[in-house]
Amino acid sequence: MTMIPAPYLLYLGRSTDSVGIKTSRGLATFRRHDCVGEFRHDDCPLTLGLQRLTMAEAAAAGARTLVLGIANSGGTMETDLVEDALAALEAGMNVASGLHQRLRDVPRLVDAARRNALQLFDVRDPPADLVVGSGRPRAGHRLLTVGTDCSVGKMYTSLALVEAIRARGKHADFRATGQTGILIAGAGVPVDAVVADFISGAIEQLAPARDDDGWDVIEGQGSLFHPSFAGVSTGLLHGAQPEAIVLCHDPSRAHMRGIAGRDLPGLGECLELNLHMARLTSAGVRAVGICLNTSAMDEASARRLCDETALAFDLPCTDPMRFGLDTIMDELLCNDVSKPATTASR
Amino acid sequence: MTMIPAPYLLYLGRSTDSVGIKTSRGLATFRRHDCVGEFRHDDCPLTLGLQRLTMAEAAAAGARTLVLGIANSGGTMETDLVEDALAALEAGMNVASGLHQRLRDVPRLVDAARRNALQLFDVRDPPADLVVGSGRPRAGHRLLTVGTDCSVGKMYTSLALVEAIRARGKHADFRATGQTGILIAGAGVPVDAVVADFISGAIEQLAPARDDDGWDVIEGQGSLFHPSFAGVSTGLLHGAQPEAIVLCHDPSRAHMRGIAGRDLPGLGECLELNLHMARLTSAGVRAVGICLNTSAMDEASARRLCDETALAFDLPCTDPMRFGLDTIMDELLCNDVSKPATTASR
Repeated sequence: MTMIPAPYLLYLGRSTDSVGIKTSRGLATFRRHDCVGEFRHDDCPLTLGLQRLTMAEAAAAGARTLVLGIANSGGTMETDLVEDALAALEAGMNVASGLHQRLRDVPRLVDAARRNALQLFDVRDPPADLVVGSGRPRAGHRLLTVGTDCSVGKMYTSLALVEAIRARGKHADFRATGQTGILIAGAGVPVDAVVADFISGAIEQLAPARDDDGWDVIEGQGSLFHPSFAGVSTGLLHGAQPEAIVLCHDPSRAHMRGIAGRDLPGLGECLELNLHMARLTSAGVRAVGICLNTSAMDEASARRLCDETALAFDLPCTDPMRFGLDTIMDELLCNDVSKPATTASR
Repeated sequence: MTMIPAPYLLYLGRSTDSVGIKTSRGLATFRRHDCVGEFRHDDCPLTLGLQRLTMAEAAAAGARTLVLGIANSGGTMETDLVEDALAALEAGMNVASGLHQRLRDVPRLVDAARRNALQLFDVRDPPADLVVGSGRPRAGHRLLTVGTDCSVGKMYTSLALVEAIRARGKHADFRATGQTGILIAGAGVPVDAVVADFISGAIEQLAPARDDDGWDVIEGQGSLFHPSFAGVSTGLLHGAQPEAIVLCHDPSRAHMRGIAGRDLPGLGECLELNLHMARLTSAGVRAVGICLNTSAMDEASARRLCDETALAFDLPCTDPMRFGLDTIMDELLCNDVSKPATTASR
């Protein structure tokens, strides 16, 4: 993918759903130094804590690209969004989008971009040269984040894992598979947008063999237990050929995302099925930890839940945003050392 | 999909791989009355047992469409294929193709079709109005064929199952998911060509709720054990929400198709994983039989293998092309009757 010129103006528009702005929020969290402000209409109750700017103010402040970092049902573009994107182009900014519908399919945007010598970036465009996966063993350390559901923290966890591995003195790279991750990393493959035959092949290409003793940390998508997206998760798991998996979960989630009445799987069955399926292409795969998104809990309850979960599954358990990743790093990187006998009695 | 005008001229071209002509062979087998002949070059050693015709002879004999029923590595179009398709158009026939590359992307074919007022059919085009799957329970009887590998007889078995169910006085419909099946049925969804997010949704749309006590027999694709395509198989399984599965297998297959050195799964583990995964959207799913492609064996050996397999897995086992589907029909349609105590001693 061509690099998208920073700094960015982050779009909130008229969004009222805080999960729906996750792409803008991801950039505000992980690339804050590249964000000059946020754009929202008067009736938008959300904020990323950035300065609220008009298109003209943002351009004057140096913003080079408006990022349409919102998700809407079906991934289509409302009139509003098109008008706002036009205004950004007229103000002198490029426009980037991760929606299923493409900017380049809106003639008014294409015209305005050409007239102003600016670019439109459709982040969800898969590469054109994909091949089917082979499942052949390849060199290198790969870790994949998997989940009980969509949007439970797989991307946040993956980014935190990269930092944690680097902090231990090893090379590590984030391999993005969704639009938010791709915008943060500046590269990646939108695996939910590739043609079905090429899911695992796309991931083999995203995380090829490496021989520097470093890690590819691959961002997971969906869940083997989500009836809408398990096909994507399966192909991703097989293509990733992971040596290690980390299971991500949101203990406050009442039902599978988008499907009222459908329970989340248990952590144990979710670990078990992911390991079972992963063995098709990675016989020695192991789980090295569980990451919980405890943002809805107080600190003491969060600590207690992590400890109880660690004990129940005999795996390190943490909230990476709150308690760091030390225990998971110990498990991941010290696999030549036997576990201390006291593990089970923590 | 618009109906493709019959009768057909079946294309073999210069193919030398008998598995590679499976689309032409499928039409010759299941829609023989719609096939006026086959087109092959002098160096093609294969035949479907139809009359060999030139383009002009076929058109004169009433053929309305040339079907490019061959698969080639990567699904691309060789120069040969384009020249032959042009000749068909000039002779007055439409052209249909199930290759990944589209006829409509070849300007010379588009021109020739327009000039001759004929049509190009790209069978592998997915519908434009797909939505993501929901996994919500829907009414109706659905059977899905699953496999140990690609190209082990899932389509043949599905078509034979439809006939067998109808012979028992019930309604049944074939739901095609691959290009050959779609050409045979005149409708269907090429599930390997849909965008990954929509795999299960495409199947929910292909086989919607029905309340006539009839059966949708859904053609399976790939295998949960094929590292290239398991994502497609998983989404298909979840979207199908099958009440019953039939496992298809080719006992002469030496390794997973396209991947030298990779063993096929055992029948037992393949049944088990398919049932386990299927339960996500169909809690009561059950296996009702095993179908073997014994075309490479003599009759006595085939009979013996089917009997031994039935005994080993306590399920009816047959080669539907050789021994019919009576035992599987008994298992499928008489599920209110307990199994006779003698089953295990057959």
